[in-house]
Amino acid sequence: MRGAVMHAPGDVRVEKREDPKILAPSDAIIRLSATCICGSDLWPWRGIDKVHGPSPMGHEYVGVVEQIGSEVKTIKVGDFVVGSFFASDNTCEICQAGYQSRCVHAQLMGSEGAQAELLHVPMADGTLVATPGMPDADLVPSLLAASDVLGTGWFGAVAAEAGPGKTVAVVGDGAVGLLAILAAKQLGAERIIAMSRHESRQKLALEFGATDIIDERGDAGVAKIKELTGGLGAHSVVEAVGTQESMMQAIRSTRPGGHVGYVGVSHGVELPGEELFFSGVHLHGGPAPVRRFLPELIDLIWNRKINPGKVFDLELPLDQAAEGYKAMDERRAIKVLLHL
Amino acid sequence: MRGAVMHAPGDVRVEKREDPKILAPSDAIIRLSATCICGSDLWPWRGIDKVHGPSPMGHEYVGVVEQIGSEVKTIKVGDFVVGSFFASDNTCEICQAGYQSRCVHAQLMGSEGAQAELLHVPMADGTLVATPGMPDADLVPSLLAASDVLGTGWFGAVAAEAGPGKTVAVVGDGAVGLLAILAAKQLGAERIIAMSRHESRQKLALEFGATDIIDERGDAGVAKIKELTGGLGAHSVVEAVGTQESMMQAIRSTRPGGHVGYVGVSHGVELPGEELFFSGVHLHGGPAPVRRFLPELIDLIWNRKINPGKVFDLELPLDQAAEGYKAMDERRAIKVLLHL
Repeated sequence: MRGAVMHAPGDVRVEKREDPKILAPSDAIIRLSATCICGSDLWPWRGIDKVHGPSPMGHEYVGVVEQIGSEVKTIKVGDFVVGSFFASDNTCEICQAGYQSRCVHAQLMGSEGAQAELLHVPMADGTLVATPGMPDADLVPSLLAASDVLGTGWFGAVAAEAGPGKTVAVVGDGAVGLLAILAAKQLGAERIIAMSRHESRQKLALEFGATDIIDERGDAGVAKIKELTGGLGAHSVVEAVGTQESMMQAIRSTRPGGHVGYVGVSHGVELPGEELFFSGVHLHGGPAPVRRFLPELIDLIWNRKINPGKVFDLELPLDQAAEGYKAMDERRAIKVLLHL
Repeated sequence: MRGAVMHAPGDVRVEKREDPKILAPSDAIIRLSATCICGSDLWPWRGIDKVHGPSPMGHEYVGVVEQIGSEVKTIKVGDFVVGSFFASDNTCEICQAGYQSRCVHAQLMGSEGAQAELLHVPMADGTLVATPGMPDADLVPSLLAASDVLGTGWFGAVAAEAGPGKTVAVVGDGAVGLLAILAAKQLGAERIIAMSRHESRQKLALEFGATDIIDERGDAGVAKIKELTGGLGAHSVVEAVGTQESMMQAIRSTRPGGHVGYVGVSHGVELPGEELFFSGVHLHGGPAPVRRFLPELIDLIWNRKINPGKVFDLELPLDQAAEGYKAMDERRAIKVLLHL
């Protein structure tokens, strides 16, 4: 099969890889309908995360089950499925509490390389959720978004306790930030403040439910949020970047007793204990337990209540993955879908 | 009147101070029945916090209202009252959300100096809660505990979401940690693990409701908690120290999706963003909004359902405050009550 492999920062090639095989009786192999490039794939592309030899890339996927192991019970060959970037058994105590990304048997799908024609999925019954049938083509991007960016933005909004009567601010206007806006809207937030300075992203933010746009960043952004909230700060702030500046912006934009949901993968962040202590905020986040939300998200997409697939503003064939990485790195695209 | 004043680290003197006066129509003056020394008073005593000239000390108090300003409505002269270390209006949006320690008009009582005969209390209607009548003498220590250490330990347990079915671990065996154990028990926790290596404190921990005692600290303490919780970590961990080691011990002892309630005043703590991100814990804490809990705590004490006053294992007259500081610094006493 063909699949994208990163050889070094800035060097992604679609090349022949070995076909994945059933290795354990709980495995499945799926034939991908679509996959995509994640903001987190840009960390190694930019040389911020180390590349240790040729690495298969990609962890977002939807597709049709081609083969299952002997113990797989709920997923059938021919099912159209969505899965998360963490494989999980969905039965352990941690999964049952809704933290499937930290399942006691969790396996990061990154090493499997989902930017490919076929994908090996461990613990298929726990990891995959089948759609009610074969989706219309126009639903595929939204279902693919559910695999990571929608689930992650949703978790950010849930962790920030977005809901009725709440003012929610979102730091970060990448796909995750934009979909946190969509999530906050669905969760009933009263006011949603998007922090963005890019016109195309502001437009999508408004379409997803933002009521206010702030283009200031850092301390100026914090001051603006305070100005919009009677000096108190937002009830709920979603952090969807992962840098020191964005984390501090999120914490400082939140009122005492408010909630920060942080889903940007933390890079070089050090939180000052004393400031955090006196801020009085709630802090929750981490790798999103997307699996928790998949049934609900698939349902919303299937019934055309939400259209998260709009974050894909560039579609390319898998073979042009490298061009996709470049477009996202240069912020020419919010998110790139790779079709097969 | 007489009051304790810190002149330099290790130098506390009880000396003549000017009698406090009504400065605003919402003020009250109370005559103290008892006051005490806080673990946080030891930071300047030890020279870790700077002492900027002679400083009146103390922020924990119970007593009888002696004088009220013209706008005070709910508190009357002659009432026996308990207040928190933060004065608060109890009416602003932040107070109404339960974060009175971050009231938009919050005033730290520390500068008022409660280790004294009389105390000036701003925003008396918001800050003070009257007991149903004059308390029996044996209830006074418990009511005094409610003013800070009980309210703080209680907030730690609430922030850690201690409750039925939960395993709660408490890092720190000072008065706050011990009372977090009492709180966890009252909140219905199934199992309460006290981390303590001092026999007298272990004894009190067990009396307050601890089911297990761990005397290991740091990584060894974390390993022991994991061992007791099927490798997962506790659901809820209260941090009641405020150092880098204790914070990391608390975070690492918590299972993914679990809750850390941190109430130890943070000193020199830097939280590593990446580890925190991947831990998947909830983090909440800060200066406890004691006022939120006072009505409930007074009720429990009044009806002799809890006896938090047991943390006072040394009682001295106010004039011997310096000896009280020494006894706590040398860990000869858990907490020192100063009587008047």
